[in-house]
Amino acid sequence: MRTHYCGQVTETLVGEEVEVCGWVHRRRDHGGVIFVDLRDRDGIVQVVYDPDSPKVFEVAERVRNEYVLRCKGKVRFRPEGTENPNMSTGKIEIIGSSLEILNRSEPPPFLVEDETDASEEVRLKHRYLDLRRPEMLQRLKIRAEITRQLRSFLDQRGFMEIETPFLTKATPEGARDYVVPSRTHQGKFFALPQSPQLFKQLLMVSGMDRYYQVVRCFRDEDLRADRQPEFTQLDIEASFISEAQITNLMEDMFRDIFTHVLEVALPHPFPRMTYAEAIERFGSDKPDLRIPLELVSITDLMQEVEFKVFSGPANDPKGRIAALRLPKGGELTRKEIDDYTKFVGIYGAKGLAYIKVNDLSQGREGLQSPILKFLPDDVVDAIMQRTGAQDGDLVFFGADKATIVNEALGALRVKLGHDRGIIEHGWKPLWVVDFPMFEFDEKENRYVALHHPFTAPVGSVEQVAADPEQALSRAYDMVLNGTEVGGGSIRIHDPAMQQEVLKLLGIDAAEAKDKFGFLLEALSYGCPPHGGIAFGLDRLVMLMTGAQSIRDVMAFPKTQTASCPLTAAPTEISPAHLRELGLRQRQPAATE
Amino acid sequence: MRTHYCGQVTETLVGEEVEVCGWVHRRRDHGGVIFVDLRDRDGIVQVVYDPDSPKVFEVAERVRNEYVLRCKGKVRFRPEGTENPNMSTGKIEIIGSSLEILNRSEPPPFLVEDETDASEEVRLKHRYLDLRRPEMLQRLKIRAEITRQLRSFLDQRGFMEIETPFLTKATPEGARDYVVPSRTHQGKFFALPQSPQLFKQLLMVSGMDRYYQVVRCFRDEDLRADRQPEFTQLDIEASFISEAQITNLMEDMFRDIFTHVLEVALPHPFPRMTYAEAIERFGSDKPDLRIPLELVSITDLMQEVEFKVFSGPANDPKGRIAALRLPKGGELTRKEIDDYTKFVGIYGAKGLAYIKVNDLSQGREGLQSPILKFLPDDVVDAIMQRTGAQDGDLVFFGADKATIVNEALGALRVKLGHDRGIIEHGWKPLWVVDFPMFEFDEKENRYVALHHPFTAPVGSVEQVAADPEQALSRAYDMVLNGTEVGGGSIRIHDPAMQQEVLKLLGIDAAEAKDKFGFLLEALSYGCPPHGGIAFGLDRLVMLMTGAQSIRDVMAFPKTQTASCPLTAAPTEISPAHLRELGLRQRQPAATE
Repeated sequence: MRTHYCGQVTETLVGEEVEVCGWVHRRRDHGGVIFVDLRDRDGIVQVVYDPDSPKVFEVAERVRNEYVLRCKGKVRFRPEGTENPNMSTGKIEIIGSSLEILNRSEPPPFLVEDETDASEEVRLKHRYLDLRRPEMLQRLKIRAEITRQLRSFLDQRGFMEIETPFLTKATPEGARDYVVPSRTHQGKFFALPQSPQLFKQLLMVSGMDRYYQVVRCFRDEDLRADRQPEFTQLDIEASFISEAQITNLMEDMFRDIFTHVLEVALPHPFPRMTYAEAIERFGSDKPDLRIPLELVSITDLMQEVEFKVFSGPANDPKGRIAALRLPKGGELTRKEIDDYTKFVGIYGAKGLAYIKVNDLSQGREGLQSPILKFLPDDVVDAIMQRTGAQDGDLVFFGADKATIVNEALGALRVKLGHDRGIIEHGWKPLWVVDFPMFEFDEKENRYVALHHPFTAPVGSVEQVAADPEQALSRAYDMVLNGTEVGGGSIRIHDPAMQQEVLKLLGIDAAEAKDKFGFLLEALSYGCPPHGGIAFGLDRLVMLMTGAQSIRDVMAFPKTQTASCPLTAAPTEISPAHLRELGLRQRQPAATE
Repeated sequence: MRTHYCGQVTETLVGEEVEVCGWVHRRRDHGGVIFVDLRDRDGIVQVVYDPDSPKVFEVAERVRNEYVLRCKGKVRFRPEGTENPNMSTGKIEIIGSSLEILNRSEPPPFLVEDETDASEEVRLKHRYLDLRRPEMLQRLKIRAEITRQLRSFLDQRGFMEIETPFLTKATPEGARDYVVPSRTHQGKFFALPQSPQLFKQLLMVSGMDRYYQVVRCFRDEDLRADRQPEFTQLDIEASFISEAQITNLMEDMFRDIFTHVLEVALPHPFPRMTYAEAIERFGSDKPDLRIPLELVSITDLMQEVEFKVFSGPANDPKGRIAALRLPKGGELTRKEIDDYTKFVGIYGAKGLAYIKVNDLSQGREGLQSPILKFLPDDVVDAIMQRTGAQDGDLVFFGADKATIVNEALGALRVKLGHDRGIIEHGWKPLWVVDFPMFEFDEKENRYVALHHPFTAPVGSVEQVAADPEQALSRAYDMVLNGTEVGGGSIRIHDPAMQQEVLKLLGIDAAEAKDKFGFLLEALSYGCPPHGGIAFGLDRLVMLMTGAQSIRDVMAFPKTQTASCPLTAAPTEISPAHLRELGLRQRQPAATE
């Protein structure tokens, strides 16, 4: 139907007859002539209709925005002074010699432009129009490109893409499963996978050696923040491999996609940081290294001070007191400091102490702070020294349980970086390693796995059993600009170790057998040492395209309430269908 | 952990030290020496342990089948006369100098060999062992290769892979949907897609122009024959494209994968056959062209005969009488003919008349048949002539409603081809085109769509409305060796046509709006002319690998009762989870 995509019609075609198909991006009448900007996947080209060709002109007059046209005509240079240097086709135009309206369009509810003020609800309801906006199209293009490049990299290195089931058994990731009632086994349900974790481990037991899959995963969680009920994961597993080998290979993969898709060279190698150091310096296990602010521990300085707010946490083995120096923070207004105090409150901090550094040469007199009076000179001096404070700076303090201080100051650090523009351009990848194997869950009064129960700990069964609190895991997270883009580990391949870890997690033999007996059994039939990783594809594409939400890099996302304004899903099903599944609707309680 | 895969250790490495990891395929003691066949994804290599190295030998003595080993040693030529020409590594062996048992294995429930007598239930329960069998591994390898090659072909031709949702609305394919209860919208359900049909059409409305996806689809059907509740589809759609363009492109794609994966050259172009011709000649819309047997209509010859079995259908406008000549069929025994009579009974045929052709030169006397007495000479002569019967042949007859005759003789044709070895080697692709748009469903007393309701008919809205029975659709099916591997069509892009087709299908405006109002709305906002196709990947891989079942080309398939012996899915869920979904179990009736 066409000889070229719209965006391909450039000055090299001047004098030639071309045929293009696309949508009316804009139609203008100017001096009795009709100008149509015709848009397709590849770009926009201007087609001109002159009243001297009355038959074609008459058709052009009926054309409206978003009509679908097939246009034929000769390419010519635009008259001088009317070129558009921002378009690949900006030097030329097509003199329309024939015109077919392939389809009409109702007036669209919003203009198909990158800048749109339509609400997200309207955009999602008319997603097919929203996706016409060039920036949305571009994101899906880059997504396809990233996926292609990832596959190409892995194929070349001997990884086999293998599909795993979607109708399966509840996975042990711990979030709520989406379930699918079985008709042939009434009363029973399939679960949609939260990840193919167990299947990929089984594939290693099968000797597949190197597996990957770009795979949809599902979690029925409350959609706070930027989550989706279904998301896509690049899932990878390999046998006879060490932490160093898999992380190096994954780095190579990232360098490869960044080079090919963004023409950006990532560092080689990526820096590695222990979990302990990340928490200590950045209050987070996914530090954004573009922000040059750091937390400094001053717990030891505060044990003797009389100020309870500080001495309390300083003498609590689970407490922490940290300082965060903000260069030029002396400029902050009272209102701004109040806002930051509210901000850290979100993370449970009860306040946000600070010292303004006006003039260090004046000692105490050069400092300004409501807490100054509680701190002896030597403590104040030590703080100034440790934080490296300079005139004009401001030092924030957090004093509480370590978890609260880390979360609050870690988040404040990132917020200050953005608010104050103290953030480097570019890409800062990082491996975080040496995670603790277990976390003690106070509420449940038991250990929980920091990664998942199949992550291998460092050390022998006996060592882990003897001191679980100190056990490290062989896990690794890839962090990019403060976002965790992937996480993985070497897995347990020894059935005895797997049983010990499950025991430590409070999962008894019966529960273990019920939940993942098939994995335990598989481990006893010659399971190779193996490990792997999984990357969140949506989030990675979001980062790489600079989109603000993962919804902007998915063709048909759900809303925050897990529904689809376009199709109106979820919908009711027939009573007959429900009966076939052996189910009935629970009646709302009488009080409702 | 290793320098080479097992299968890579060939004579080029003689004299070198190598390290390999893998599974003990077999262990033999011979003349005081231990021979271990070590297996990995790439092949098998022989490692020899000599009692002269007592430390290593002692470890080797503990080794059993399916243990996981890491073996180091020097490569040497095998002693003369002990080479194995069937293995890539058959000329060499490794002299084991160090040996680590990486994991042990319980004695496996069946031997990891291509020839296995384990039941499918046992194989599926221990799928991780079953997949170790080289032929299973090979099938998954070829599956990955086919998928990669398909993607590569489509990427190069400007198709973008775009992901569509899995939690969506009931699709109009007509089979039963798998549904997913919504927790946040109690009483409502998502449906798992039977295909991304509507989404890919919406992507065309979005201007994506060329889309594809390798995508899981779901059907909650009774699993007769070789079906699976979830299966994988290569889904394709393009805009501004004609039937000829899309079918030619798809042919190119098939030639490409057959060349790359099987080194087979498929014909260029594929033959095209109308639906009417396929039914007439082969009784099937997916004829296996490898079998040179054909149906011949003799309906017209039978209108005057006195034999009711023939004259009845001959005078019924929906009847058909057809003959099927089997060369050398005179050899068939009475028992064989009885078995074929039973066979066609499956398809509703009430009998299977035949004429044995002993000696044509003797006229009637040279023929042998219980029905001969009912047929006048001229009819018999005409039958012999039309079927081209020769001495020694047998001619079968079907006389009934055309649908029954076609199904019965079409199936018999295929069965005879296989049973009698009248089947060509190689690959016979075919496009079947010019399908009827509608079929009249006697039971429901209404028209149903032969493809789906979005398939474009040939002709204008008025023409289709005036004579739906005669309307052809712009659909095309790709058939390969008698299997439908793909089907597609040019779609309706005109909202008026779409509404007319839905009306003809007995779907009123309210139902249409409820079911696919969003598609109808999308058509009114500038939908381009478009069309596409979908291929069943599992079935294609099955054909290309020569597997007997699609279960043999899926890593983790379900049984015929839609369950998984490995994970025991589906399973019960907790009462709390059920309550969260607003559901309760329907109590079995008291009589049960």
